Amino acid sequence: MSGAIGAMRSTLDIHVAVAKIAHHGGGESGDTIETIERPGGGFSFVLVDGQGSGRGAKTLSNLLATRAISLLKDGARDGAVARAVHDYLYTYRMGQVAATLNILSVDFQSGKILISRNNPAPFFVLDPEGVVSHNEPSTPIGLQPMIKPVISELEVRPYTYVVIFTDGLLRAGERYGEDIELLNYLSAWPVMDGRSPGELSEMLLQRALELDRGEPCDDMSIVVLAVLPGNEAASIRRLAVSAPFEEPTWPAPM
Amino acid sequence: MSGAIGAMRSTLDIHVAVAKIAHHGGGESGDTIETIERPGGGFSFVLVDGQGSGRGAKTLSNLLATRAISLLKDGARDGAVARAVHDYLYTYRMGQVAATLNILSVDFQSGKILISRNNPAPFFVLDPEGVVSHNEPSTPIGLQPMIKPVISELEVRPYTYVVIFTDGLLRAGERYGEDIELLNYLSAWPVMDGRSPGELSEMLLQRALELDRGEPCDDMSIVVLAVLPGNEAASIRRLAVSAPFEEPTWPAPM
Repeated sequence: MSGAIGAMRSTLDIHVAVAKIAHHGGGESGDTIETIERPGGGFSFVLVDGQGSGRGAKTLSNLLATRAISLLKDGARDGAVARAVHDYLYTYRMGQVAATLNILSVDFQSGKILISRNNPAPFFVLDPEGVVSHNEPSTPIGLQPMIKPVISELEVRPYTYVVIFTDGLLRAGERYGEDIELLNYLSAWPVMDGRSPGELSEMLLQRALELDRGEPCDDMSIVVLAVLPGNEAASIRRLAVSAPFEEPTWPAPM
Repeated sequence: MSGAIGAMRSTLDIHVAVAKIAHHGGGESGDTIETIERPGGGFSFVLVDGQGSGRGAKTLSNLLATRAISLLKDGARDGAVARAVHDYLYTYRMGQVAATLNILSVDFQSGKILISRNNPAPFFVLDPEGVVSHNEPSTPIGLQPMIKPVISELEVRPYTYVVIFTDGLLRAGERYGEDIELLNYLSAWPVMDGRSPGELSEMLLQRALELDRGEPCDDMSIVVLAVLPGNEAASIRRLAVSAPFEEPTWPAPM
């Protein structure tokens, strides 16, 4: 078993796509997503949804994401990072403020995909055998002492997709009595076609925007990871970021 | 002036593409690149090339990039971050170890693009008026006390490209007596076509690989930023990462 996987490994690529949109009229998304390269090899994505909306929620999610990536960059294991970020929030906001925290990692040291979740919203895994909704009970960080993440571990196998999101996605269409029905929707994804995760994240985002009639009722962030057969001779890493330019909020000489 | 720019701002998108390749036979690139969302709005890219090669260079560049993104996430201004990272390296390696450090930021607070450079390698700016090589003398961090970055500030204007890289790119073809002639090469880029920065970074990478006959003599990292007219109604942020999966280096239970 390990031999067979070992033989395949160098020919697999990991692709991750993130799409993020602020709720209508809010201007700024209260969600923060950051990615870092893990010091032992691989990378991690940290997704935080701070309680509330606007500037306050954004400041909170920024502080928590900063803490998480600093710890991950120091080599701390994902479970310890989630606990430490909870303790930080619980200590300094005295149990009064909640946030959701997801950490998605591809760890080249253990050769696994790790999903650490402090979020009532589930995440989904799509592979050739079907779609699994991981909805084990999970608590946001910040409100009670000693909160722990739910950690899932997956093998790195071709044609595996992992879909993680903040609850704005689940709530799309709620105002109009509609439901995004993610499980049904994801079941239709042609896993074996090897499409990019960007196609899936865009499709989900468009679907959510349609249900909310173009005016998202909440901040939404979607992270899709895909393990696909490699298609390049050279070992190249790529990163792409795009965002609308925003007007200066105050005139700031450097 | 500020009125005209102000009117255009909400219709501009910022796109950034990064491509990174390890030198042939090295397995691991000694370069580290990280990106973060700035707490005041906008984002920053930190590019570090640690002295030497292999695991040692990688550990060094990882430590320095970690320090830089932690400070940036705390809201520290770019020039202070470059100075602090230098001081950190100079203090703990006692002036014995060098690294190059570039910080590329789009700062939504001041509405500027900032390039902070501790790197003898130049960077390039392409806009409708032509190509400018920014090669003001600049020193790597780590070797002498009180090193400062060279900081350049650019307006956010449509059809502006900024190209930053580690010196491996400049050295492509050196072994075979060839020169990448970046300035000539970039002068041919059709700025007004509004192509994605990913096309430019891929073109540069392919060109470098050809000159090195498919076996890069050094780690190479390329960062290309583009300011282009916006093409979407909604304010969506996107991030995409791809990398070859690497075999576990040691068996690690979580």
